[in-house]
Amino acid sequence: MQPIKWERERLVLLDQTRLPHRQDWISCTTYREVVEAIKAMQVRGAPAIGIAAAFGVVLGAKEYAHLPAQSFQKRLQVIIAELAATRPTAVNLFWALEKMEQVAGKLAGQDPHLIVIELEKAAVQLTVEDLSVNRQIGNYGQQLFDFPARILTHCNAGALATAGYGTALGVIRAAHAAGKVQQVYADETRPLLQGARLTAWELVTEGIPVTLITDSMAGYLLQQKMVDLVIVGADRIASNGDVANKIGTYSLAVLAQTNNVPFYVAAPLSTFDLSISTGRDIPIEERDPREVTCIMGLSIAPEGVDVFNPAFDITPAQYVTAIITEAGVLRPPYREKIASLKSEKGKTG
Amino acid sequence: MQPIKWERERLVLLDQTRLPHRQDWISCTTYREVVEAIKAMQVRGAPAIGIAAAFGVVLGAKEYAHLPAQSFQKRLQVIIAELAATRPTAVNLFWALEKMEQVAGKLAGQDPHLIVIELEKAAVQLTVEDLSVNRQIGNYGQQLFDFPARILTHCNAGALATAGYGTALGVIRAAHAAGKVQQVYADETRPLLQGARLTAWELVTEGIPVTLITDSMAGYLLQQKMVDLVIVGADRIASNGDVANKIGTYSLAVLAQTNNVPFYVAAPLSTFDLSISTGRDIPIEERDPREVTCIMGLSIAPEGVDVFNPAFDITPAQYVTAIITEAGVLRPPYREKIASLKSEKGKTG
Repeated sequence: MQPIKWERERLVLLDQTRLPHRQDWISCTTYREVVEAIKAMQVRGAPAIGIAAAFGVVLGAKEYAHLPAQSFQKRLQVIIAELAATRPTAVNLFWALEKMEQVAGKLAGQDPHLIVIELEKAAVQLTVEDLSVNRQIGNYGQQLFDFPARILTHCNAGALATAGYGTALGVIRAAHAAGKVQQVYADETRPLLQGARLTAWELVTEGIPVTLITDSMAGYLLQQKMVDLVIVGADRIASNGDVANKIGTYSLAVLAQTNNVPFYVAAPLSTFDLSISTGRDIPIEERDPREVTCIMGLSIAPEGVDVFNPAFDITPAQYVTAIITEAGVLRPPYREKIASLKSEKGKTG
Repeated sequence: MQPIKWERERLVLLDQTRLPHRQDWISCTTYREVVEAIKAMQVRGAPAIGIAAAFGVVLGAKEYAHLPAQSFQKRLQVIIAELAATRPTAVNLFWALEKMEQVAGKLAGQDPHLIVIELEKAAVQLTVEDLSVNRQIGNYGQQLFDFPARILTHCNAGALATAGYGTALGVIRAAHAAGKVQQVYADETRPLLQGARLTAWELVTEGIPVTLITDSMAGYLLQQKMVDLVIVGADRIASNGDVANKIGTYSLAVLAQTNNVPFYVAAPLSTFDLSISTGRDIPIEERDPREVTCIMGLSIAPEGVDVFNPAFDITPAQYVTAIITEAGVLRPPYREKIASLKSEKGKTG
């Protein structure tokens, strides 16, 4: 299951706002179409929007490859800035755009057509790497338990949120392949229902046993000892291990700790942001109130009600049992380990 | 706002499954129609279903008042049993039915038409008392704080859940009248959205400032110090102070305690069940999976996904800052205070 397909002249995205009932693919031939697809969450999930944005840069570069070298570089800056302005919380977006900027920067002054080719290579490389990173995360994650586990997850950190395979769902896929999954509980994840629409669909499709619950039932399941471990993805991790992830993650983490259930975060190293000391400095996106008052176009609330719609929250590191990365499993205290892992990665990657 | 109207020949209920967009009233002329209205949650809320059931007994008694005295009493037992079997968690239902049974029992052997009149008087009495009890709860509750407060509530413990005025929303109404409400945050309360559909509607209608959030946002608000206190209703309270209430209440209570925010339960003495020692013994209703997979008739999940749909959870007494009743505010430890209040009430009521 790969939600992002690169077909040289266009980026083809599985429209995640239409799942599970419709599998519509949308075709982006300009970078502005990619900008709109990210804003509308037709493509979503921290690693996936990084990859989509990288291909957005490629499309944008192609559009302007006829310009003289210097104008092309300036134009590329604008394109990257527009792609960066789509969503504020997930750092993978900025990380991927920075990679693309570095590629273009190194070739500054050269023929834009050549730069387009190198940008395309880089974007394809990001995609290939993300898939391989997810499989490594899956492999490390499934080693955390031996028994057939009952696993709770929130939102969608699956194939649909990445180049494929997934981070939190990557661990669940790897564990399922190893016979270690008894039951997955998927929080529906209001307002946009990524758990009900995307995670449940991924797992039903692959025959992994999944039970859907509303977000407010998760605490009850934890209290009733119906869950052995919680695994979620992340949109940004601060250098102290604080985790920004889909709204509701913080509540789950507190409830897991209260009930002595391990709470794992699965994320690639590209999700760590060393420029940020603690979660307090991570910007939290607020989205359209209609995401709360309307469900799939249907109004569920009275006219005139105010709405608050933060899309993410911050889970303090003290609630995170371990962070599963492609380079291994991190345990608290996190600050030093995160710093050393990121600098190693900088050397080799 | 009174959701239950007794018109002698029929019970008229505001259909709570249609709010906020339609204000449909349904008319019950037989007790079986009342049974169906309670099961379908057209009337819901612990005190409200007690009152509706009491009038159900009146309607049923009228239907069979032509029978000989002994057959009538037997028939009445069946009617009461059917009404009792509608929903298992809220104890007010059984409490109200027991009151009705006592009335009929005292008059056993007398002309059924006379018994019908006495049953009707008792049901009307329950309604009048509930309204007055709610105003007392409101008055005691608003004395718990002096400042203009930001109050979080879950589900609907409002006028719609009672004979009128409400328990948790009764406190909010009384506090608002006293100028002590800065902002109410209403959890939408999936699966049936009583917060979005009913609480938001009650508060918008009365001009009390209300902001709607999804259930998973409550923890974030508590963490961000955006909430000064939490108030919810209750469906049953065990003799040790454990509280059964709408699913999600337990999570809120844990998150409130984690963030040092007081967590109040507002409930009439009829919600206390002294026959139950702790919350573990309170039966938790599980409802139709389609409440989770469909929102107002619209499917939000893939075909074939399993669902778990508990309608209530248990909040251990340790998370409850105080319980607000018509007889005053109870503070922990609860067991002795609950026992003495209930026995006083038994003497006077």
